Amino acid sequence: MADKAQIQEAIKTQGEVVRKLKAEKASKEQIDEEVAKLLELKVQLGGDEGRHQFTLKTAKGTRDYNPKQMAIREKVFNTIISCFKRHGAENIDTPVFELKETLTGKYGEDSKYDLTVSFKPTVLDPTPSQVPFARYLAMNKVTNIKRYHIAKVYRRDNPAMTRGRYREFYQCDFDIAGQYDPMIPDAECLKIVHEILSELELGDFRIKVNDRRILDGMFAVCGVPDDKFRTICSTVDKLDKMSWEDVRSEMVKEKGLSEEAADQIGQYVSLQGGMDLAERLLQDAKMSQSKQACAGLTDMKQLFSYLQLFQVTDKVVFDLSLARGLDYYTGVIYEAILTQTGPVPVAAAQNGAGEKAEEGVSVGSVAGGGRYDGLVGMFDPKGRKVPCVGVSIGIERVFSIMEQKAEASAEKVRTTETQVMVASAQKNLLEERLRLTAELWNAGIKAEVMYKKNPKLLSQLQHCEDSGIPLVAILGEQELKDGVVKLRTVHSREEIDVSRAKLVEEIKRRTSDV
Amino acid sequence: MADKAQIQEAIKTQGEVVRKLKAEKASKEQIDEEVAKLLELKVQLGGDEGRHQFTLKTAKGTRDYNPKQMAIREKVFNTIISCFKRHGAENIDTPVFELKETLTGKYGEDSKYDLTVSFKPTVLDPTPSQVPFARYLAMNKVTNIKRYHIAKVYRRDNPAMTRGRYREFYQCDFDIAGQYDPMIPDAECLKIVHEILSELELGDFRIKVNDRRILDGMFAVCGVPDDKFRTICSTVDKLDKMSWEDVRSEMVKEKGLSEEAADQIGQYVSLQGGMDLAERLLQDAKMSQSKQACAGLTDMKQLFSYLQLFQVTDKVVFDLSLARGLDYYTGVIYEAILTQTGPVPVAAAQNGAGEKAEEGVSVGSVAGGGRYDGLVGMFDPKGRKVPCVGVSIGIERVFSIMEQKAEASAEKVRTTETQVMVASAQKNLLEERLRLTAELWNAGIKAEVMYKKNPKLLSQLQHCEDSGIPLVAILGEQELKDGVVKLRTVHSREEIDVSRAKLVEEIKRRTSDV
Repeated sequence: MADKAQIQEAIKTQGEVVRKLKAEKASKEQIDEEVAKLLELKVQLGGDEGRHQFTLKTAKGTRDYNPKQMAIREKVFNTIISCFKRHGAENIDTPVFELKETLTGKYGEDSKYDLTVSFKPTVLDPTPSQVPFARYLAMNKVTNIKRYHIAKVYRRDNPAMTRGRYREFYQCDFDIAGQYDPMIPDAECLKIVHEILSELELGDFRIKVNDRRILDGMFAVCGVPDDKFRTICSTVDKLDKMSWEDVRSEMVKEKGLSEEAADQIGQYVSLQGGMDLAERLLQDAKMSQSKQACAGLTDMKQLFSYLQLFQVTDKVVFDLSLARGLDYYTGVIYEAILTQTGPVPVAAAQNGAGEKAEEGVSVGSVAGGGRYDGLVGMFDPKGRKVPCVGVSIGIERVFSIMEQKAEASAEKVRTTETQVMVASAQKNLLEERLRLTAELWNAGIKAEVMYKKNPKLLSQLQHCEDSGIPLVAILGEQELKDGVVKLRTVHSREEIDVSRAKLVEEIKRRTSDV
Repeated sequence: MADKAQIQEAIKTQGEVVRKLKAEKASKEQIDEEVAKLLELKVQLGGDEGRHQFTLKTAKGTRDYNPKQMAIREKVFNTIISCFKRHGAENIDTPVFELKETLTGKYGEDSKYDLTVSFKPTVLDPTPSQVPFARYLAMNKVTNIKRYHIAKVYRRDNPAMTRGRYREFYQCDFDIAGQYDPMIPDAECLKIVHEILSELELGDFRIKVNDRRILDGMFAVCGVPDDKFRTICSTVDKLDKMSWEDVRSEMVKEKGLSEEAADQIGQYVSLQGGMDLAERLLQDAKMSQSKQACAGLTDMKQLFSYLQLFQVTDKVVFDLSLARGLDYYTGVIYEAILTQTGPVPVAAAQNGAGEKAEEGVSVGSVAGGGRYDGLVGMFDPKGRKVPCVGVSIGIERVFSIMEQKAEASAEKVRTTETQVMVASAQKNLLEERLRLTAELWNAGIKAEVMYKKNPKLLSQLQHCEDSGIPLVAILGEQELKDGVVKLRTVHSREEIDVSRAKLVEEIKRRTSDV
């Protein structure tokens, strides 16, 4: 323990740090952090001056969710989970941490899938959620399943905290595993993205689709050396944030690609279309030379024919510039982006340009995924493969957008589902109020009662206004004598007497749409 | 990196450790752990012999949940959350880790609440969930709220892993904060426990109630020195697992209490009753000397009068031997136990006797809580108090019991909610199946379709049998021509033709109770 003089010295130094940052107009996050250090020192000094100035806060990179935020989250979860269930998905849960051996892919022999490339192999870092899923399938010898998994995940401390990246956040995944006829489960994943984004009403969106095999074939026919596929692919991946000129320059100057190859890639990655584009490229003199590309293009045609049956082609675009980062994708890949130019969600802006967001979806995107047929085999001792295709919903981004929408809207977000408030206008009716409330609870009615012996009627009504409770069941001496309850509609202020025996039924009837 | 010879040497040593443990019949857990180390060494050596013997597993202290377990969890969550919502509760979420300052109670000046007594002040250890809640209230200056919070929490590695304690588990809490008339929110907490345990159908249960003030008063009048209250209280707390003789012996021999004091305590803690007992003790010559005890007893009478109105006195017992551990309880305390002598849930048995389970409920108990009026004030810079009362549901125990019940029952647990399977008996109808499936999805029907071009009807029906799908919509050339669908009830094998236009309505009608 440092002595008092030392601490006072440290406080002085730290005070200067804070003043300097303020003068430099550093980020709020940075200043807060240094102020916190200062206050901590003051606390060490003891006495009132330090202790009472200490600001209560959550741990770095974490936050609380208040009832309004939770109500919005619940609505989002309900929409998404309903969709998964509508598609017959089961729910599984895997632990938040995995063994290092699982993360580093030491089980398998296929060094092609070096999972450490994509993330640090530390137990608490968020792993692409396909990894625990693949481990689960191999470990339990599951050969086919349609499942979803929504869970909080954690990341270790990150020096880049100034960008507001959270250490605690949700991942939301849907995957279909199993040996099936081509592109049917793939099409269902896109249908699911279409349903979820439509139902969430986030604004207009587009789902870009491509195929790892088309990309690889394209690189081959454009003259990219085999050992440069991956690095060139990651440069192409930046096309949604960088101009073609900058991407081309990175390919040529930083990655040493020939100008001709870069220009040929440039021609292809500018292409967008649907089934027609797949057909055209199958006839393309260069593309058609690649067996891989042809396989991908044939599947792309098939995919679009299923998407037509699912009536989702209005939002789906075959886009040759889409090149999702993760190494384990083997076939179709996709990414959904919001096309509406609304306010940029704070969380997204804070993620910083050029960086992938947590859930495996890039900035600007709200969902992404693809086919990964090799991952399970990596965990299986005998290398048995289980083909998989899946999608991650960028649920944290969805939360931010929904919160902003709620903020901007005049409509109030209800944080409870209470249907009726049991109230009284007169004194000494607490027992009667409690008795009626219990009756309602026992009948499955969502009811509240004030925890006061003699609350004012006005404050009981005010609580209903504040929290959106639609009905009030008012008890008085006269009502008790008559065996009725005065049922008041908060909105219209209309009141009618309802017999006690009919009360439950009447409340259910009136709130059946809630 | 060690060289090959070193690793081979280490393998030899480790092999001996494993053989020794097996010879000693050590616990499976212990042996597995050492075997894992052995295999890991073999993997380091490289080559097939090590790699292929490596057992895939989850990290120590964690586990996967399969779809059946998740379906049971979802049912439990739904029951519990519905109850909370029926009582008008809001939902909040606080981070899984808190600052050390929060956990160690450094913010406040009242050294009475040393939170480090109850748990280690490390960020990842599970904290009594009241602590983040109190921090949230103080930080956001919330003076009244009724909230629930269900979340996974984590504990650091524990050397006592052989008892099967998990590092990852759920906590489930309900709390009412605010300045209210005495015992009304307290009674509601007990009503909630009663509702939840009744609805979960875990078997018969009892809710023991006591009051910290009655305990303290009792200790005082029995002649326990002030500085021994806490330690004697923790001995009394063992009465549900130890005989009175053993408890008495611990008080006298280990804790140095006089025999007279111990015997007087013994007389009181054997008492159980209801409102009558509270009335009797208010007249008790000794008890009535303690102001604290009288305050507690008066409130206990009041509590029972509300419990009568709520019709839950059948399960609630005023039990003077109940002495919950946590230091921050200030008033009423309670604990619900299952009284049925069924099979002991594995998780509970593994927790070992004499130890508190994770959720703050003791072994054998499924819910517990009490009033803690001082905790929020500890976090408030001005010491403003926000009285709180709450309950934790021992949700992990509930899961184990429900899983065991499902295991023992003949009834199959459904893991999906699919209402209808879209099938065909003939070939080349994939497109028609997909089209109809999309129609059903778009109408909100939960539907599945096989991802095969030409699946056998039998395998489609078999899937329905296996996963409990009640209906099959069968398409054939004839049905398509006639604009109908053959709707088959899986259970009865009965089939009828339904016009395509009426199909959605008919499926909804038939599955409205699902």
